[in-house]
Amino acid sequence: MIPFTFEILHQSKKSRARVGRIHTPHGIIDTPNFVAVGTNGTLKALDNEMVKTIGLQLMFCNTYHLLLQPGTSVIREAGGIHKFINRNLPIITDSGGFQVFSLAYGGVADELKSKGTKKSEGSVLKITSDGVLFRSYRDGQKVLLTPETSVQAQKALGADIIIPFDELPPYHICPKALSRSLDRTHEWEKRSLEEHLKNPQGQAMYAVVHGGVDNKLREKSCKFLADLPFDGFAIGGSMGKTKEEMVTMLSATLPKLPETAPNHLLGIADLESLEACVPLGIDTFDSSYPTKAARHGTLLTHEGPLKITRGIFKNKFTSPVKGCSCYTCEHYTLAYLHHLFKAKEISGLTLASVHNLHFMVELMSQYKNKILNDII
Amino acid sequence: MIPFTFEILHQSKKSRARVGRIHTPHGIIDTPNFVAVGTNGTLKALDNEMVKTIGLQLMFCNTYHLLLQPGTSVIREAGGIHKFINRNLPIITDSGGFQVFSLAYGGVADELKSKGTKKSEGSVLKITSDGVLFRSYRDGQKVLLTPETSVQAQKALGADIIIPFDELPPYHICPKALSRSLDRTHEWEKRSLEEHLKNPQGQAMYAVVHGGVDNKLREKSCKFLADLPFDGFAIGGSMGKTKEEMVTMLSATLPKLPETAPNHLLGIADLESLEACVPLGIDTFDSSYPTKAARHGTLLTHEGPLKITRGIFKNKFTSPVKGCSCYTCEHYTLAYLHHLFKAKEISGLTLASVHNLHFMVELMSQYKNKILNDII
Repeated sequence: MIPFTFEILHQSKKSRARVGRIHTPHGIIDTPNFVAVGTNGTLKALDNEMVKTIGLQLMFCNTYHLLLQPGTSVIREAGGIHKFINRNLPIITDSGGFQVFSLAYGGVADELKSKGTKKSEGSVLKITSDGVLFRSYRDGQKVLLTPETSVQAQKALGADIIIPFDELPPYHICPKALSRSLDRTHEWEKRSLEEHLKNPQGQAMYAVVHGGVDNKLREKSCKFLADLPFDGFAIGGSMGKTKEEMVTMLSATLPKLPETAPNHLLGIADLESLEACVPLGIDTFDSSYPTKAARHGTLLTHEGPLKITRGIFKNKFTSPVKGCSCYTCEHYTLAYLHHLFKAKEISGLTLASVHNLHFMVELMSQYKNKILNDII
Repeated sequence: MIPFTFEILHQSKKSRARVGRIHTPHGIIDTPNFVAVGTNGTLKALDNEMVKTIGLQLMFCNTYHLLLQPGTSVIREAGGIHKFINRNLPIITDSGGFQVFSLAYGGVADELKSKGTKKSEGSVLKITSDGVLFRSYRDGQKVLLTPETSVQAQKALGADIIIPFDELPPYHICPKALSRSLDRTHEWEKRSLEEHLKNPQGQAMYAVVHGGVDNKLREKSCKFLADLPFDGFAIGGSMGKTKEEMVTMLSATLPKLPETAPNHLLGIADLESLEACVPLGIDTFDSSYPTKAARHGTLLTHEGPLKITRGIFKNKFTSPVKGCSCYTCEHYTLAYLHHLFKAKEISGLTLASVHNLHFMVELMSQYKNKILNDII
């Protein structure tokens, strides 16, 4: 089995941006890269075999969802997540923390990442220093998520990269509570790492840097986590109310992380943020934005978002996006895509998703080239 | 352009079943064959490029739906339905009659073909000897569907096989009214044919035989229509309350049709009906049943329907259907398909649809071989 390693191929002369390559047991992730979100072990409206043709190197699956359906024991029995979902390429799973704390803090967590929380998604019963007890929305069973059980679940899933259990504090938290939350998160991440190292199974674990928009706390978090043998560093928690706040926070935080380790920005990969964050030296970005936008009828283009349902497209018998070489743009017209959305056909969701994911792959490749040429 | 022709390759010694080949401007349809329904110019949950790999030779599109969205003028401007939807293979369109009369007679027509009529689907304003005036559910515009406008719409679409405008009487119609309806339908079909022959454009027109379960009326219908220069004959109207009634009616009706012309059974292709009707000499069958069943989580198998969501499948890490060579069965397990349905993932609908359509293609190929060997 190929061990997890990260090599930096080029450091931009113009910014902190770098081009790198992450080696995992299931293949290479060129960086900087976009990570598609397949919450339940599938990208929405796309099957994993087809997805192989798009060129996405890393897929993000959600432990919280898989824990409840089909359950980690089923996936372990299948031989791991790669076999279960038919994907012989790198996968990253999260800890489940984000979802359980979204349940607990509801509307507040929604502010952070515009993560809608359905009322049917269960309920949190108790939060202690040990972890979170919640009720499954699927069968009403109580589920205890702790650093240890989260890592055990991620061991059963067997993704290439896993994430320690952390606390996601509400956005409107007072500085003292944020500081206490950070200490708890650090304690939980340490316990997660210990649990992981009992049986690494070739998996890599990325720490999650917290501290909200408090630069001192972020620095403290970097220092604490960098002292532990994590394989990489993800940036989580509140990124602030605006892109500017996020960029300010990331500009201060990233230099505090070990340069030789890969880093990841959790849950953010809209085009504006990519433009701002690639120069800061972020290596990977995950987001459900491109697929969600697609299902809502928005195609990503270099000239801005294209709203498929606009009346002017009903007889545009040209490629949906000029010059695009994706499966959708190669085989269908804008008029047909417009029609599929107007007729509420599922195939429209699939075709728009293919385009947006292809766009992300191409976009990241362009960023790579710009870094290699020291343009950014 | 290849003209429409039909050749019979083998007549079974055991039944009226035959193996044939329909040549159309967009390629061959081997018979007997299953015709997939792509109401809006797409099979549900599948894109037409992918569908090419399944081996379906003929696709059924609905004029009523395409008339309202995107409108026939858009499709004409695109260069016809084949170009608009990216399908360079045979297509058949209906007249729109079935849908407008379903609107008019609502629950009664629903009895006939279990066609659900959404309340939002517009309303019929007037039925006269000229045709049907209805209100579009899309924009509230009045639309007049007559033999002439239906054929003109189908000329704009440009399918390989088109269907004359007919009346679909309610099932619980008195014998006198049924007889009057048949006369009107014949008049409309004649007018449709005349309109068609003004500009054949290489299209073939199949008559629609009516008469409900009244054998005398069916015979009258066959006689009337066979005297006109139609290219083939579809069986429409009420088929009776039970499969037995349908088989009795078809057994009496089919021998009254010209043997050398292709025939088609409208809207019926469930497995039980195929088993009963292939020996009667039906050449093509259309139905949305295989794709609808798929979206409801039912896989077709030779051992009967397989309900994907059954709990016992959650850890069946084998091919969904043993021995099946479809894309879905080749790449995914039953457990994963079960999971996708439990997690309400769109990709599950796609994968189940691929399997069921592949199953139909294989099944019809098996029927062909049995006929060639005089087994049926």
